[in-house]
Amino acid sequence: MSAAQESFEWPVRVYVEDTDAGGIVFYANYLKFFERARTEWVRARGISLRSGLEEGISFVVHSLQMQYHQPAYLDDQLGITADLITVGRSYMVFRQQAWRQGDNTLLASGEVKVACVQLPAGRPRKFPEALKAVLQVPVTANHHQ
Amino acid sequence: MSAAQESFEWPVRVYVEDTDAGGIVFYANYLKFFERARTEWVRARGISLRSGLEEGISFVVHSLQMQYHQPAYLDDQLGITADLITVGRSYMVFRQQAWRQGDNTLLASGEVKVACVQLPAGRPRKFPEALKAVLQVPVTANHHQ
Amino acid sequence: MSAAQESFEWPVRVYVEDTDAGGIVFYANYLKFFERARTEWVRARGISLRSGLEEGISFVVHSLQMQYHQPAYLDDQLGITADLITVGRSYMVFRQQAWRQGDNTLLASGEVKVACVQLPAGRPRKFPEALKAVLQVPVTANHHQ
Amino acid sequence: MSAAQESFEWPVRVYVEDTDAGGIVFYANYLKFFERARTEWVRARGISLRSGLEEGISFVVHSLQMQYHQPAYLDDQLGITADLITVGRSYMVFRQQAWRQGDNTLLASGEVKVACVQLPAGRPRKFPEALKAVLQVPVTANHHQ
Repeated sequence: MSAAQESFEWPVRVYVEDTDAGGIVFYANYLKFFERARTEWVRARGISLRSGLEEGISFVVHSLQMQYHQPAYLDDQLGITADLITVGRSYMVFRQQAWRQGDNTLLASGEVKVACVQLPAGRPRKFPEALKAVLQVPVTANHHQ
Repeated sequence: MSAAQESFEWPVRVYVEDTDAGGIVFYANYLKFFERARTEWVRARGISLRSGLEEGISFVVHSLQMQYHQPAYLDDQLGITADLITVGRSYMVFRQQAWRQGDNTLLASGEVKVACVQLPAGRPRKFPEALKAVLQVPVTANHHQ
Repeated sequence: MSAAQESFEWPVRVYVEDTDAGGIVFYANYLKFFERARTEWVRARGISLRSGLEEGISFVVHSLQMQYHQPAYLDDQLGITADLITVGRSYMVFRQQAWRQGDNTLLASGEVKVACVQLPAGRPRKFPEALKAVLQVPVTANHHQ
Repeated sequence: MSAAQESFEWPVRVYVEDTDAGGIVFYANYLKFFERARTEWVRARGISLRSGLEEGISFVVHSLQMQYHQPAYLDDQLGITADLITVGRSYMVFRQQAWRQGDNTLLASGEVKVACVQLPAGRPRKFPEALKAVLQVPVTANHHQ
């Protein structure tokens, strides 16, 4: 696998919807791909975003930085990694990468700081206990479509 | 103006986000454009979608049909029309068109049936009185950016 | 499986990017899901959209109709079907459905007429021979993520 | 105006398409808004992205960083600023902000480094002369819809 051994990785196929008139994946769409991988990272730990929402608990991105290394094209099969690198009382920082699987090329990399908030006001809140518990446990998973 | 005299029309510029690797506007994005024009049609009648949402009133698309006549390209300035052609107890049908303003070309046309629903269950409900009142009154507006 | 035995079906997970402030999947996004299933239907027959693009051959949607039956929610696992129901000299008509796999509910259904065109002018053209050949051969495939 | 006097600013309305199930604008969509403002910044200097594309000249994002301060909601009227803060031989860095106009609140801010590339290979190239010329000239413009 392209990513480091311990990385969580989620497969993403590039469809027409993801591309733009430059013939490549539109830059904002990597944030969709990264968010899919973070969602599956959470799901792999048995946590449901939706049941969180039903209790008014949501996760919002606080800040991020991205580097775009190489473009992705229509039909590319990507692997999107998500590694939790820092955990605070109410936030997590993920390091994420997008790899093209055909030629093992790093396409984009970044760090995303996600805060736990209470709806509807959206104020920061402590992680729910269920999530806090699993954040201590490393889960290694490489899912392949 | 390209549309019939009585049509409500809203301007939409084509950005990179709207295009795909074929160099044209991705077909699903016309539904975004049509929805923007319907939202502005409603707003022009003094109705706020957001205050509706706060009362659990929402609008969902029941069905639609679309014809794609000519492609739109990056930087095109479009005019999106919305004409209310049928009103029921809990639904409205809009006829909508997308025109390119530079050469007065019809790009896409369709009909969209929108139902009023009560959240969270999403069951059909009568229009709120405020909306029902304005649905009787034709509003002609041509907004230009 | 929810769809008829012979249907091609492709799995789609609902992510935050697909939902809207009404708490459901935004209506335009079903067209993305349908397009993903058509793309995989073509790929399952050994045809690459991208190599088509490189020869200036593209596929554009000519027209469509959609019915929205029930909403889809965050985290839902969907199955998107694609059945070729008509083939012409330069067009195909697909019947497509979106099912929720948890409770076997039909969420949306539609028909999409896709035309083969020659870039950059975008004029209708005959199907390339490779595609024409496979269009005669039924391929039954149910892919699961 | 909310932004500093000299900033270029472009209006963006929040539609249903921009929101997510958390009731706020999805984080990736600010990159769409920022890109619209950069496009209009370029257009205000008489440069057409599309004619660039026709000559194989494109602009790709090299890197970016974003801070999300406050959420935006359905129907919000935003002002998106774009300020050129650095110009190199083949790249530009923009400082950008998203403001809500109703209560003059800063919602998001970031810096985006954009590189000029030659298609189809996508290698960095010098700015075309026409663009280089206008990059020296400050253009102050506040456009309102």
